Amino acid sequence: MNIKVNKSKNLKEKVKSSQLGFGQVFTDHMFKIKYHSDKGWYNAEIIPYGDISLSPAATVFHYGQETFEGLKAYKSKSGQIRLFRPRENFKRLNKSNQRLCMPTVNIDDMMKALKQLIKLEESWIPTEEGTSLYIRPFVIATNPYLGVKASDIYELYIILSPVGSYYKTGLTPTKILVEENFVRAVKGGTGTAKAGGNYAASLQSIKNAQDKGCNQVLFLDAIERRYVEEIGTSNAFFKIDEVVYTPPLTGTILPGITRASVIELLKSKKIEVVEKRLTIEEIYQASLSGSLKEIFATGTAAVISPIGELIWNDKSIVANDRLIGPISQLIYEQITDIQVGNIDDPFNWIEIIE
Amino acid sequence: MNIKVNKSKNLKEKVKSSQLGFGQVFTDHMFKIKYHSDKGWYNAEIIPYGDISLSPAATVFHYGQETFEGLKAYKSKSGQIRLFRPRENFKRLNKSNQRLCMPTVNIDDMMKALKQLIKLEESWIPTEEGTSLYIRPFVIATNPYLGVKASDIYELYIILSPVGSYYKTGLTPTKILVEENFVRAVKGGTGTAKAGGNYAASLQSIKNAQDKGCNQVLFLDAIERRYVEEIGTSNAFFKIDEVVYTPPLTGTILPGITRASVIELLKSKKIEVVEKRLTIEEIYQASLSGSLKEIFATGTAAVISPIGELIWNDKSIVANDRLIGPISQLIYEQITDIQVGNIDDPFNWIEIIE
Repeated sequence: MNIKVNKSKNLKEKVKSSQLGFGQVFTDHMFKIKYHSDKGWYNAEIIPYGDISLSPAATVFHYGQETFEGLKAYKSKSGQIRLFRPRENFKRLNKSNQRLCMPTVNIDDMMKALKQLIKLEESWIPTEEGTSLYIRPFVIATNPYLGVKASDIYELYIILSPVGSYYKTGLTPTKILVEENFVRAVKGGTGTAKAGGNYAASLQSIKNAQDKGCNQVLFLDAIERRYVEEIGTSNAFFKIDEVVYTPPLTGTILPGITRASVIELLKSKKIEVVEKRLTIEEIYQASLSGSLKEIFATGTAAVISPIGELIWNDKSIVANDRLIGPISQLIYEQITDIQVGNIDDPFNWIEIIE
Repeated sequence: MNIKVNKSKNLKEKVKSSQLGFGQVFTDHMFKIKYHSDKGWYNAEIIPYGDISLSPAATVFHYGQETFEGLKAYKSKSGQIRLFRPRENFKRLNKSNQRLCMPTVNIDDMMKALKQLIKLEESWIPTEEGTSLYIRPFVIATNPYLGVKASDIYELYIILSPVGSYYKTGLTPTKILVEENFVRAVKGGTGTAKAGGNYAASLQSIKNAQDKGCNQVLFLDAIERRYVEEIGTSNAFFKIDEVVYTPPLTGTILPGITRASVIELLKSKKIEVVEKRLTIEEIYQASLSGSLKEIFATGTAAVISPIGELIWNDKSIVANDRLIGPISQLIYEQITDIQVGNIDDPFNWIEIIE
């Protein structure tokens, strides 16, 4: 894959680290590659960040044929640019694409594109504690045709966004509403894919939770409406007595890369982790008996989000007196220290951009 | 609502009726209106049909926050422009939008926009038997922000596409594959909304059915995987003995406007119609006993699509010897005759553009 580079003539002013939120500021350039079913991926280029122009009939505007990924680059104190498990993201993109009848990508080509783009945008990587360069690859179907069928043509982009610290005032446990009306995914659907429609389906629940004073929503399974599945767009973990539980990947849950990393990390620390379906009733009972020790969510944006309380109908399920638990704290520190290079990387999670 | 009109200076050449497919050719103009949560819908305009330009971070490219409608305009022999139940489409658009946390529209404003646009494009309405002007209103979320939340800004478009006859060689019964692996929707999800993600979820099943020599897919319910739900993007009807059955609107099925019209029409003809969940096993048994008389699907594109055979695992479920049944034929003729004005419209389905 040969990448043409068309550098921007109007570089933007950088935004101060302290003023960065999430996903609002974008760098000067983006990567773009096109796909046609007759010729595969072609015309790779790095171009100035700017609007995408598509036919009003493009498949992505009507039938949601779109997938994406999210990962981060960090700058170490010594100036290294460090990517956290980037190949896992492109592997998952390929699985998402297969589910949505979209073409897969060559992972080495994508790594080459990603590294070249980030090197060009190196000055955009923020360095203050907790900050990073968020990376958003996404694929959209662009056939100008209204028949309901998989598109023949696609565009893949990688855009970059410097993001501020998720926890400006330290790790603060959140309050989560258990969703009783709506569901996120069902087996046989698209819940394991990072596909637009899953997120569209969750928006009303997120809004409802926030309207009720909660930070996020916890989704139950679609069939029995009892088993906990995901928290917002994150994977869920529950420590009960001395065991950490997380729902297994049985066809409805996004296979989180942070989730997998947390499992690997906990096992290395000899902390028992079990992938098992848990009902909300079991979690409630564990809170009553005092055996519910910690709840946390994992994802790329926050790494770890400790959860202080679940609101389930008229019941409150409190974990660890609404304080950060030791496991949440340990995982957060270990993973973020590996990400930025403060400690060794025994798991080979980091890929350095030379 | 005041509509600015910016007429195209380069009118396209018309395509011959005989060469029209579905959703491939578009007229010279489109309607566009913007929305901002601070000021509601604003800046209504009719502009030349052309590309939509959006930020690469626009919500619609990542989180599938998008809804659409589909309806048709017909030209009668006397030159009337006739719309089939257009207000029902905008009512349903509002329901879809509510499910996806999107703003609702004023139905009278939308009717005004639609009529003005179609009048301007009147010369694009094909007049040969079976042809029509397909109308596609759609709404897309355009916030340039990667956080997972409902967008604050939207754009609504109406585009028009002259479409050829769905049945160039008469009504031909189709062969449908019963989908055993994937599902389209589950209660609590977005199955009742015309939302992009539902269609994205169905693409692999449609492709799989076509790879196996079938025309479309029949989806079963997500929970018990027994009850028939939808056929491709159409509603399903089964005539068993003297009764016509169709799945009820229990939270997973799109409330089809053709479906509702077929029910109303059959009742007016004193044909018994029952909204009832049917299992694929029951339909199979009915075919063995000879009581399965007809299967058909209903939707805007084809109006009625008679179904000759269902492939369910290794079993073949044949209806009416793979021939068009009398009910399918009757409904097709009655509805299309009302649409184009060949017969009276006792149901008040038609809205004429003066």
